[in-house]
Amino acid sequence: MSPTVDELISAARAGDARSVAKLISLVERGAPELPRIAGALGEHAQRAHIIGLTGSPGVGKSTTTNELVAAFRRAGKRVGVLAIDPSSPFTGGAILGDRVRMQDHATDPGVYIRSMSSRGHLGGLASATPAAARVLAGIGCDIVVVETVGVGQAEVEIASLADTTLVLLAPGMGDAIQAVKAGILEIADIFVINKADRDGADNTYRDIQGMIALGERPPGQWRPRVLRTVASRGEGIAEVVSTLDEHLSYLEESGELAKRRTERAAAEIEAVALATLRARIGSLRGGDGMQLDELAGKVAVGALDPYAAAERLLAALES
Amino acid sequence: MSPTVDELISAARAGDARSVAKLISLVERGAPELPRIAGALGEHAQRAHIIGLTGSPGVGKSTTTNELVAAFRRAGKRVGVLAIDPSSPFTGGAILGDRVRMQDHATDPGVYIRSMSSRGHLGGLASATPAAARVLAGIGCDIVVVETVGVGQAEVEIASLADTTLVLLAPGMGDAIQAVKAGILEIADIFVINKADRDGADNTYRDIQGMIALGERPPGQWRPRVLRTVASRGEGIAEVVSTLDEHLSYLEESGELAKRRTERAAAEIEAVALATLRARIGSLRGGDGMQLDELAGKVAVGALDPYAAAERLLAALES
Repeated sequence: MSPTVDELISAARAGDARSVAKLISLVERGAPELPRIAGALGEHAQRAHIIGLTGSPGVGKSTTTNELVAAFRRAGKRVGVLAIDPSSPFTGGAILGDRVRMQDHATDPGVYIRSMSSRGHLGGLASATPAAARVLAGIGCDIVVVETVGVGQAEVEIASLADTTLVLLAPGMGDAIQAVKAGILEIADIFVINKADRDGADNTYRDIQGMIALGERPPGQWRPRVLRTVASRGEGIAEVVSTLDEHLSYLEESGELAKRRTERAAAEIEAVALATLRARIGSLRGGDGMQLDELAGKVAVGALDPYAAAERLLAALES
Repeated sequence: MSPTVDELISAARAGDARSVAKLISLVERGAPELPRIAGALGEHAQRAHIIGLTGSPGVGKSTTTNELVAAFRRAGKRVGVLAIDPSSPFTGGAILGDRVRMQDHATDPGVYIRSMSSRGHLGGLASATPAAARVLAGIGCDIVVVETVGVGQAEVEIASLADTTLVLLAPGMGDAIQAVKAGILEIADIFVINKADRDGADNTYRDIQGMIALGERPPGQWRPRVLRTVASRGEGIAEVVSTLDEHLSYLEESGELAKRRTERAAAEIEAVALATLRARIGSLRGGDGMQLDELAGKVAVGALDPYAAAERLLAALES
């Protein structure tokens, strides 16, 4: 007999990695148990500090995440990591190699690491990732790191689901300019220049500081920090951790945390509602519900336009 | 007095670029005129050959598009180009420079070129791009080229909206392997190795041919073609054009065209229906419709889970 949702959550809270895996799989698949899981997690689900970590390929995201996890563990915190791969629509790609590296923590029951594809989820990160983060928070993780490759849209999405967004750069990759172009300045709470022992680190540091100085912000508002690390040697990690803590305190004291979380919740409720509606539309396809296929056939030959068709579809949905 | 939808369409069909621009802007904004425009375009909207052109940055997409446009013009065809920039959530980036190059055709009333951001459209390409393509077809374009930077998801999306998908590669960029990893083999009808005069072109050619040979396909099914071009000198473009025509004939004769267009229509109807539903959910925010904000506040503190909240939201939507 397979365990109930409550049993899974109890076991996961006690540190059973398999139960955590099972819960996240259910969430990822959008299983019918989802609402029950969300309900059973209760208010614990809102207690973790959710840290978004993003950056271009090759800046050292996995190594940095690995070092951060180790630092949090030394501080006695339980940590969850969700590694999102938005560039992989079909199968897991290069990221698998990275995951193996993170298996430093594989035998530590206080760390849970999971790779997720953002594919197939309505709204990408917007839907399945917050649900998975909520599971990790709900089973007792104090910290949830959501790691994703920065490819434009993903960076913006990660900012909308994290409490604190950390953008990782490396010297000499043209990242600084690229980052600013992509609007990353507007989403980063903390910049970390990794591989800071390499040529060009000072230039990258100056570029980013210069761009931050140009931005106007009301008094009392968080000013993005710029830190340097050599993650492969663990250098600078302690300062990243203390800056993350500092940012969380700022969020709590300024009321920004409640604001960000309410916005996030609204987006998530909307995503869930839309997914439900989408499923209802899907039920109008094939088999007994031929409406969508019929309408599509008419649109394909120009006998009907998609707007008129959508109107008929919605009418069928509501009848 | 601003022109009516019918007047805009008449002027656009006569070759007035401003009227085309106006129509696409209305479509892009999701203006209330949208259903009226779609209705007025009629069955013309389904007559163009829609060509998706994708590839990594730097493979020569703009140059290739430019040369293809010139070739189609020489054959007396009207051509529309939609250049989608999925990596630019905030402002137009590097693509502006490319657009300038394409202004070779700026004074030709038989060519219409438009840059679009995929940002803010529900489902990215899935919603606004087909509508814009339909406008171009409906006003008399025989060919519509949808050009987009290949960044994972975008490639898959472009394949779902095009009749023919052309994937552009360049030698020595690791594209071949990357492309296959990203599942591009499953979506490309035609591979074009651009910059074929460079070192490594033969290797890329062999890699791709090798991968195609591995794939099994039933007899009669299209086998992806691999072509070589040096677009900057116009070399190989004629063969690309004839292969595009050959693919269109295959689609028509095999019944695949009707199938692809019906699938596309179904996706588009679904996207329009979802956008409508999303707008209704939006109307439950702020002002008189406080429901969503209230629910989000409860979820943010863990007093309610997002699934229960979404259920209440949908109930409010239907009441």
